[in-house]
Amino acid sequence: MKIIITGGSGFLGQRAARELLKRSQVNDADGNPQPIREIGLVDIAPPLNGLSDATVRYAVGDAANPKFIAETLGDDTDGIFHLAAVVSGAAEADFDLGMRVNIDGTRGLLDACRRLRKPPRVLFASSVAVFGAPLPELVTDATTPIPHSSYGIQKLIGELLVSEYSRKGFIDGRSVRLPTVSIRPGKPNAAASSFASGILREPLNGIEAICPVEPDTKLWLISPRLAVECLLHGFDLPAGELGRIRSLSLPGITVSVDEMVASLKRVAGPAAARRIRWEPDEGIKQIVKSWPARFDTTRANSLGFPRDEGGFDRIIDDYVRDEGLKLQPKY
Amino acid sequence: MKIIITGGSGFLGQRAARELLKRSQVNDADGNPQPIREIGLVDIAPPLNGLSDATVRYAVGDAANPKFIAETLGDDTDGIFHLAAVVSGAAEADFDLGMRVNIDGTRGLLDACRRLRKPPRVLFASSVAVFGAPLPELVTDATTPIPHSSYGIQKLIGELLVSEYSRKGFIDGRSVRLPTVSIRPGKPNAAASSFASGILREPLNGIEAICPVEPDTKLWLISPRLAVECLLHGFDLPAGELGRIRSLSLPGITVSVDEMVASLKRVAGPAAARRIRWEPDEGIKQIVKSWPARFDTTRANSLGFPRDEGGFDRIIDDYVRDEGLKLQPKY
Repeated sequence: MKIIITGGSGFLGQRAARELLKRSQVNDADGNPQPIREIGLVDIAPPLNGLSDATVRYAVGDAANPKFIAETLGDDTDGIFHLAAVVSGAAEADFDLGMRVNIDGTRGLLDACRRLRKPPRVLFASSVAVFGAPLPELVTDATTPIPHSSYGIQKLIGELLVSEYSRKGFIDGRSVRLPTVSIRPGKPNAAASSFASGILREPLNGIEAICPVEPDTKLWLISPRLAVECLLHGFDLPAGELGRIRSLSLPGITVSVDEMVASLKRVAGPAAARRIRWEPDEGIKQIVKSWPARFDTTRANSLGFPRDEGGFDRIIDDYVRDEGLKLQPKY
Repeated sequence: MKIIITGGSGFLGQRAARELLKRSQVNDADGNPQPIREIGLVDIAPPLNGLSDATVRYAVGDAANPKFIAETLGDDTDGIFHLAAVVSGAAEADFDLGMRVNIDGTRGLLDACRRLRKPPRVLFASSVAVFGAPLPELVTDATTPIPHSSYGIQKLIGELLVSEYSRKGFIDGRSVRLPTVSIRPGKPNAAASSFASGILREPLNGIEAICPVEPDTKLWLISPRLAVECLLHGFDLPAGELGRIRSLSLPGITVSVDEMVASLKRVAGPAAARRIRWEPDEGIKQIVKSWPARFDTTRANSLGFPRDEGGFDRIIDDYVRDEGLKLQPKY
C-alpha cells in the first residue's frame, strides 16, 4: 500500500507516519491488512527533525497546486490522510489563503484521485469547528453544522466534497471531526485554541504562558495519541460500516480550564501552575465560547473509535513521556 | 438600483425581470424602496422571445468565467439574483460541468462582489434537493441537509458560501430553497422533476406526456408566480430580519400526482388527463422518492413569504392565463 499524508510535516502528520511505520500495515478495501510499501509526506516545508525511514519519502510543495499533487500521487496511491490545512486563526485573518488551501487544495486532491488506477481511500481531518453557536448543550451526530468561522465553513465544504466524491465512486472517503488537540508539542500557532496546549506545554518547560479565557471555560479535547489512533482507525474502517454518511465526530473529553490546571499541579507541581498568567482576551473568549464542549459520539463509539481513558492527568503524563521532558522542580 | 439576474434567459429569470419591471423598485440595505435603473440579464444564450425594455440589458457569456462576470457587474451593481445553474439531471450526468457552473460559478460571482463599491445584496436560488433520504416525515428548518445528488451538494455548498461571504461582510446574502416549480412553461429539461410540469403542460397543449412515477407519489411544489414572488420577497428582506442563518426553505404545497391529474381534469377535462401515459421509470422513481414532500416552513411564514393559496386548480388556471393558452376540447 502506498499512503500519502498531506500536512506531513505537521505534528499530527509526523506522528501518524510514525504510527503507520510501527504498525507496518493498513486495511485494504476489503478490510484485509496489507503491508505499507511507501509513505509520502507532503507539505509546504520539510519538517524540523523529521522522521527518517526507508519507507518514507518527502514531497515539498503546495498541496493546492494540482500539478504538484498529481505528480506526488502518481497513479498508484492507495490511501491518503488529508491533514493539510490553514488553521482557524489564520483562515479568519487571510480569507483567500484559507479558501485556497482548505477548499481548492481539498478539491484539487480529490480530483487528482480520479486519475488514479483505482479509487483510493481518503481520510479527511475535519474539525468540531464545523459547529457554531447557537448550539444545543449536547451536540450529536444529528446536529446541523452551522459554522461561524471561515475555517469551519471550509472544513464543512471539504466534508461535503469527500461525501460526494465517495457517492460518485471516485474515492472511498471518510471525514472525522477532531476535537481540540491538547497537548500539542511545539510552538503556539494561529489557532484560537492555541492556549489549550500552551497553558500546559509552556509551564512544563518552565516558561510563562498566558491564559486568555476564564478558568470555568469548558473544552472538548483529544490527546495527540488518541487523535492519531482515531485517524488510523477511521482510515481502516470498511466503507460498508460507514454507509452513506461519511462524516462523524470523534470521541473526546470535556474538561474545564481549571481542571486542566489542577492536573498540571498534580503532575508537575504548583510551581508549574504559577507560570500561567490569567489575561482574559475578549476576542478569544468569544470564539472559544462559541465552540461546543459536550458531544454525544454514539456513532464513533459503535464504530470502535478509541477514547481517552484516565482523564487529563494521563494526557499530561503521556505528553511528558512522549516528548522526553524533564520536569522542573515542583515547588 | 442596478440589478443583475444570472440565468436571466431562463424562465424564472425572465419572469423575475418582468416582475421587477412591473414593481419598478426594490428595497435598499435600509429597507427603503429605491427605483430600479438597470436590470442586467446574464446567461450563456439570449432568450427566445425575451423581454425587451429600455431598462433591460442582456449580457451573453459564461457566468463561471470570472472576467466576464466582473465586467458584467461593473463596480456599481446593487443587487444580484443568482439563478444560473446546471439542473439536477445534467449535474448528475456531467459531474465536472455541474461543479464548474454550480460551485465555481457561484464562488466567482461572490468574489466579483468583493470588488464592487459596496457589498451588494445577493439572492441565491437554492433547492430542496439539498435534502436527501433518509429524512423525517416533516422537514423543518432544523433538519440537517444531507444531499444525495451532485446538484444538491453543489447547491448546499453555494448556500455555505453565501452565508460565509455574508458573515465576512462581502455581501448581504440570502439563500432560498425552492420547491419543485410546477407548471414550468417551455420544454422538458434534464431535471428528474421535469415530469411534474410535463404531465400538465403537454396535455394542456394537446400533446401526450409520460408520467414516470406512481399516482400516489407526493411532491413539494411551488407555482411559477409564487416562486417569483418569493425570490423578490427574499431579496427585499432586511438583513436584520434574517440574522445569522441565511438559508431557509420556501413555502410550498404538498400535492400527490393523482391530485394534480384530478385538477387537470377539472380545469381542462378528461380528454387532457387521457393524454398522460403511465410508464413507471425505476431510476426516476428512486430519485423522486428520496425528495422530501412535506415541510414545516415556520421561518419563511414568519418572515412574510407568500404562499400558494387555492390549491392546484388555481395553479393550472394561472398557467393557462399566464401563457395565453387556448384549451383543447374537454372531452
